[in-house]
Amino acid sequence: MVYDIAIIGTGPAGLEAAITAKVRNKNILVFGSKESSVKVSKAHTILNYLGLPEIPGSEMSKAFLDHAASMDVEITDEQITAIYAMGETFALQGAVNMYEAKTVILATGVVAQKPYPGEEELLGRGVSYCATCDAALYKGKTAVVIGSSAKEEEEANFLSEYAGKVYYIPLYKDEVHVNDEIEVVRERPLEILGEKVVEKLKTEAREIETDGVFVLREAVAPGKLVPGLETDGPHVKVNLDMSTSIPGCFAAGDIAGLPYQYIKSAGQGNTAALSAVSYLTKIGQK
Amino acid sequence: MVYDIAIIGTGPAGLEAAITAKVRNKNILVFGSKESSVKVSKAHTILNYLGLPEIPGSEMSKAFLDHAASMDVEITDEQITAIYAMGETFALQGAVNMYEAKTVILATGVVAQKPYPGEEELLGRGVSYCATCDAALYKGKTAVVIGSSAKEEEEANFLSEYAGKVYYIPLYKDEVHVNDEIEVVRERPLEILGEKVVEKLKTEAREIETDGVFVLREAVAPGKLVPGLETDGPHVKVNLDMSTSIPGCFAAGDIAGLPYQYIKSAGQGNTAALSAVSYLTKIGQK
Repeated sequence: MVYDIAIIGTGPAGLEAAITAKVRNKNILVFGSKESSVKVSKAHTILNYLGLPEIPGSEMSKAFLDHAASMDVEITDEQITAIYAMGETFALQGAVNMYEAKTVILATGVVAQKPYPGEEELLGRGVSYCATCDAALYKGKTAVVIGSSAKEEEEANFLSEYAGKVYYIPLYKDEVHVNDEIEVVRERPLEILGEKVVEKLKTEAREIETDGVFVLREAVAPGKLVPGLETDGPHVKVNLDMSTSIPGCFAAGDIAGLPYQYIKSAGQGNTAALSAVSYLTKIGQK
Repeated sequence: MVYDIAIIGTGPAGLEAAITAKVRNKNILVFGSKESSVKVSKAHTILNYLGLPEIPGSEMSKAFLDHAASMDVEITDEQITAIYAMGETFALQGAVNMYEAKTVILATGVVAQKPYPGEEELLGRGVSYCATCDAALYKGKTAVVIGSSAKEEEEANFLSEYAGKVYYIPLYKDEVHVNDEIEVVRERPLEILGEKVVEKLKTEAREIETDGVFVLREAVAPGKLVPGLETDGPHVKVNLDMSTSIPGCFAAGDIAGLPYQYIKSAGQGNTAALSAVSYLTKIGQK
């Protein structure tokens, strides 16, 4: 099945794009966390989302998800690791399945963090962004998982079903709940080392010998997610109608640039969805 | 007093700009209707303003105004008829007072209606957009008021205190409540006639002899409001950060282009306010 619009991300930009696409009766796929954005739900209080005065992030997140659910927006909790522009359609490579859509809206948020030294050089040679995808390659081997939020704990658990040894490095302060056989390491990662493949992860305290390093962030850099996409630092280059350098591919929210504000993200999600709808009309008339 | 930011318009774009500017502790002026946008409050149901599911326009309008009020946003119900870029600051000409601000955010909405034939040619020579401003010129004379919404009835009443004869042409279907001496005319206006000054208003039924025609719409075309501003049809030309062709002047919402959607307007109001804040920082450092 070829969907009309695939939306990547379930923060304010992605969910607003989803409800607007629903209003326009489009056939959509929405990928991301069923709990919306961690950045939203962890926010203390938001003062300037017009219509929702002085609202805690957790409540805002719930309001967004309830709104989407009330309009039958279904969220697929599968990581999309790459999106290929195939001409007529886009192929979306998920951790488990492949999907196809006529248009794509990128609303994944932005990678606040810089890549670790060695990360880009060793990507695909021991460095991975998806435990679900690559776990099977680690039978009996050693892996380090760097998790930017608690939702990555599940990925570490899954990996530990295959790997001989798993280290888990949380980049957050909350208590960690992972399987007993996983070794939790509270050390700041500094560098990924290795000649041709990953050999070690250097932390502030020591060097850990390992076959692989899984860097699990909330978002993947857009140029890596969509090969060929024009970017500007961590952002996708967009026009006022949220179109990008690739026809049929739109972007909205933090990934589309500053300011990082929830109402701005939602507004751009709306524009991106309506631009995708116009694009669908245009290609449908050919 | 020179204000930091003058915001023109109290729809979603203007109110969001106002609350964001308040969060950033700026000294602001907000001009527009104390009842927000008629377009919002008259909307039947809005489905896709993320966080406020399936909400009647009247409730949404109330939520917006309550939010602004909770953050001490004060609305000045005085029409701004022209804005002049003076170099360091902007001079705002109101119907009664003059104001001065370092930056301006245009959030007036868009003029859906085309000008009447003769309107632009006779502007300032019998055609006016502001009864409050020009009423005193009509002592004992005849005037026609074309009102796009019920809030213009008050302007017609005010004018009738000066003019010898006032015709009121409502462009809406609701019952009209104006002073007894005003003649309500339910005919579609077609053209404003006159050699050097206004002489007649031609309607679908007849020609009405008059000294002046007040065309009272919800918004004034942006190029007329801010002389020198680059426009594109009924819209202001904007960049992604909502800046316009005039430094220090920003635009947001319908006036900044399609799509005409409440959440998009609010999002752009947020961006415009933060861009104005950045601009203030920049000029403050000079």
